[in-house]
Amino acid sequence: MPGYRLLLAYDGTGFHGYARQPEIRTVQGVLEDALTGIVGPTETFVAGRTDKGVHATGQTVSFTTESSVDPARIMRSINRRIGPEISILAVVEVADTFHARFSATGRAYRYQVLNRESPDPFRSAVSWHLPHSLDIDAMNEASVAFVGEHDFASLCRKAGDRSTVRQVLWAYWRRVDDLVELSVAATAFCHQMVRSMVAIAVDVGRERVDAGSVPAILAAHDRRAGRGAAPARGLTLVAVSYPGESLPRPEWVPEIA
Amino acid sequence: MPGYRLLLAYDGTGFHGYARQPEIRTVQGVLEDALTGIVGPTETFVAGRTDKGVHATGQTVSFTTESSVDPARIMRSINRRIGPEISILAVVEVADTFHARFSATGRAYRYQVLNRESPDPFRSAVSWHLPHSLDIDAMNEASVAFVGEHDFASLCRKAGDRSTVRQVLWAYWRRVDDLVELSVAATAFCHQMVRSMVAIAVDVGRERVDAGSVPAILAAHDRRAGRGAAPARGLTLVAVSYPGESLPRPEWVPEIA
Repeated sequence: MPGYRLLLAYDGTGFHGYARQPEIRTVQGVLEDALTGIVGPTETFVAGRTDKGVHATGQTVSFTTESSVDPARIMRSINRRIGPEISILAVVEVADTFHARFSATGRAYRYQVLNRESPDPFRSAVSWHLPHSLDIDAMNEASVAFVGEHDFASLCRKAGDRSTVRQVLWAYWRRVDDLVELSVAATAFCHQMVRSMVAIAVDVGRERVDAGSVPAILAAHDRRAGRGAAPARGLTLVAVSYPGESLPRPEWVPEIA
Repeated sequence: MPGYRLLLAYDGTGFHGYARQPEIRTVQGVLEDALTGIVGPTETFVAGRTDKGVHATGQTVSFTTESSVDPARIMRSINRRIGPEISILAVVEVADTFHARFSATGRAYRYQVLNRESPDPFRSAVSWHLPHSLDIDAMNEASVAFVGEHDFASLCRKAGDRSTVRQVLWAYWRRVDDLVELSVAATAFCHQMVRSMVAIAVDVGRERVDAGSVPAILAAHDRRAGRGAAPARGLTLVAVSYPGESLPRPEWVPEIA
């Protein structure tokens, strides 16, 4: 039975998140409806189930079918059926043991803050608009404490009984003109973990929280020790890695971050 | 009586063009409704009345009021009242003789073509998606013939009895990865002139029209000699100049273009 791996991008603004829900417009719902028209009813698996309003430029989805179909034809057929809010960037045939979620070895996200007085109509859907002064050095001092293996219970929503231990590979902020962005990567993230990291870093950047307080926040193992979650609109899943692949580390992220 | 000059940006996607119309959502309608709440009923004038779906990053609007108001307060008040689709970037007090349209000496536009196989969810509202191969050199060879003073009747929609003679300052295409963009400036443009220039240049780039045919198209003084108009979504008004100011010519546009 052939397996397929899809690389896709979507603007999350008009969707109620990735995961299929009855009667509600979701990325998975729109994608699977399109796939059904091409290869018949198909269950798909996704690397990162993004929340309502969260975007992706490098999401990965996998599925298997009874019969072999030309990957280029799958890509063209889906893109013809779905609007510009979702775009299939690549389709490759893979072993039927490939699972977008369980085979994944790492995920990378970007978070964008628009840091200027006036809003920007062309970036409002993909950034958190903050007019306040932000101390990027302090935000990086705070964020370096997230790097490595930690129990992120203080940054996880609805963890239940599952482990909240995760390994963060890097977490680093930079400013490019009026845009302040975070690049962060981990083997995996718990629910709302990146947005919780952003909320803490931004409060550090605004001098509402001390840069040295992150270890204590993590040690509390309690979500109430955090600073809530930054808005979904600023968050984008940029890449997922699988065995033998590495995540694209931006050249501006130093080794220590 | 004090006059004010507003610099504004808007995403034209959700508006039925710039100009106010009864019962229809337009940029002018939303802007004047917000201004009414701040300085009372106000008639505004605009440098370029953009069509439905056309965007702006450097549109200019002027108005006068009975009483003097702090420009910074006008900017903050409008931005608080209107959504992120429109943003006031700057407000300055000017002589009450300043008129955004009649005082303007030049306008610059950008047109963006997304030239790759897959659509891009994050650029679909601001670009024309064309998967076909485009010969940029041929497009520039064609576009150079637009530069200078010409009668653009073949590129003007609904000109009526008014003159269609315009002076184009530059018109040049470049490719940056998958984005093909035109920078074009003129003292003024007639209706749909830029989109008509783009339609011709793209047909030249696709080898459907010969690059040397532009002079004949212009000489026809007949819109049927052209190639119609490219989609509105790719077009953005980027700058307007006034006496003593010059339009920002991108450094990648050569002197001859």
